[in-house]
Amino acid sequence: MASTDQRWLPFAACSGASTVALALAVTAGAATRSWSGNPNSNAASNITHPPSTTRPLDHAAARSGSAFRTPSHCASLVPPPAESLPMPITLTVFEDSPDRGRGLARDMQVRWALEELGLAYAVRGVSFATMKGAEHLARQPFGQIPAFEEDGLTLFESGAIVLHLAERHPGLLPADPHARARALAWMFAAVSTIEPPIVEWAMARMLERDADWFAARQPMLEERVRTRLAQLAARLGERDWLEGGFTAADLLMISVLRRLERAPMLPEQPRLVAYIARGEARPAFQRAFAAQRALFEARARAND
Amino acid sequence: MASTDQRWLPFAACSGASTVALALAVTAGAATRSWSGNPNSNAASNITHPPSTTRPLDHAAARSGSAFRTPSHCASLVPPPAESLPMPITLTVFEDSPDRGRGLARDMQVRWALEELGLAYAVRGVSFATMKGAEHLARQPFGQIPAFEEDGLTLFESGAIVLHLAERHPGLLPADPHARARALAWMFAAVSTIEPPIVEWAMARMLERDADWFAARQPMLEERVRTRLAQLAARLGERDWLEGGFTAADLLMISVLRRLERAPMLPEQPRLVAYIARGEARPAFQRAFAAQRALFEARARAND
Repeated sequence: MASTDQRWLPFAACSGASTVALALAVTAGAATRSWSGNPNSNAASNITHPPSTTRPLDHAAARSGSAFRTPSHCASLVPPPAESLPMPITLTVFEDSPDRGRGLARDMQVRWALEELGLAYAVRGVSFATMKGAEHLARQPFGQIPAFEEDGLTLFESGAIVLHLAERHPGLLPADPHARARALAWMFAAVSTIEPPIVEWAMARMLERDADWFAARQPMLEERVRTRLAQLAARLGERDWLEGGFTAADLLMISVLRRLERAPMLPEQPRLVAYIARGEARPAFQRAFAAQRALFEARARAND
Repeated sequence: MASTDQRWLPFAACSGASTVALALAVTAGAATRSWSGNPNSNAASNITHPPSTTRPLDHAAARSGSAFRTPSHCASLVPPPAESLPMPITLTVFEDSPDRGRGLARDMQVRWALEELGLAYAVRGVSFATMKGAEHLARQPFGQIPAFEEDGLTLFESGAIVLHLAERHPGLLPADPHARARALAWMFAAVSTIEPPIVEWAMARMLERDADWFAARQPMLEERVRTRLAQLAARLGERDWLEGGFTAADLLMISVLRRLERAPMLPEQPRLVAYIARGEARPAFQRAFAAQRALFEARARAND
């Protein structure tokens, strides 16, 4: 992993009136600093600034939300000198994630990639109502999260954002051209072959549970997932990762598989259970998980 | 588009006992030559060779299948001198496509990309039974088509194969880094945001049409597709293509949208109808369509 000491970039994004911004600056490795934008700010545009105080992330504190602090004058903060700091990365995420901080929303894979690569980022939270508005649709044409912004570039699709990051920073794609091409194939497989039957199964449980046909359809939906899991487990075999060392393909695949955490089909494939556990054990995963968890818990307290 | 006169590579692949190989060599532009491997060959491995006769593709003839011819001694054909010809691309496709030659199987997007880039390729047909066997699963871990082979590299996932080709040959991705990143985002959007609800809708029509709940669920499935089409049409706006000129993103998106050819939701979005038509009007699309159609029709005649 690249050293990012000189890239460490503390800043906070303040929100437009329709969004709540929680900003999080992150370093590679152990030292992580975080704080929040002012949820009550009416600043018309995002402003970056160095924090007046920072401290290493305490994971337990982050989980309880106490690693965040609120600048008192978000709208009047002074941007840092442009020549000394790169343009920050801003990630737009759920203001109130429907997964309740379990790291199952699709910003998780981008946060994880940013942590693996040691890249600092700010977070902008959007409400469900805001996500369908013109401002967010300009960033994300399907009214979803995440959206990614950096240096005038706005991207959507978690798979594409992870690929974009992996192409520009070493550490998440093999150097060998053939191995790289196969890793990209697994990235596409994660989001277009493994994820769709998982989402179909999960959506039916969420939206059709009270329908007359729910019980009758479940075995079919489970079987579709089961088939893909068996094929994936067969190909993974005894290896730790899909293509050599850990790559962006594992990052996306494990993120997709994590949606099955409560599914009866997953324990049938112990290789995949172990594969997910290997991914979740990575320090970068844990930092990403803590960051999204802290955001959820801060919101939960604010909503109390 | 790159000139490919010197890359034009006539060859035919002969089949193993469990597969039927139909090989097709293609040039950029108007001149296309094609012929078939011997379906009855028991050759243990694929062999490439120059054809003894070639002729420009007659599209009408291709549609009727007469552009194909069968070498009589496929297993004993002499490979071309290695120094004069690059390693051929081999695409594994349905031996009998369930779409009956309508170009809706996922080899179509790879064929289209190969035609846009002027790359020659051979085709290996696999039966539904063969697709679930170890030989094919080694190429494609989910027992699907297409699989792509070139120079020791085996790839799966149509999106990844198209991206691999677009990265290595000019013509299907913008040169500007930001535009390129956005085109990649649309590639992911095609296969992981637009395609899944279309497949869910299509699969229900195919597999659940006789179920008690079919009629009750259809409006929900149609609405999921309708929402994505409206968002896509809104973003496309008055432009011809998603990101500047025609890119791999349009190639994948139009390929995905073509599965809606009989859906009532598509005519509600005239911009998308026109977008699909623009894609289908491209000569490379038409050559790719003719090639897969000719394969289907040749098989249909063989099965008579």
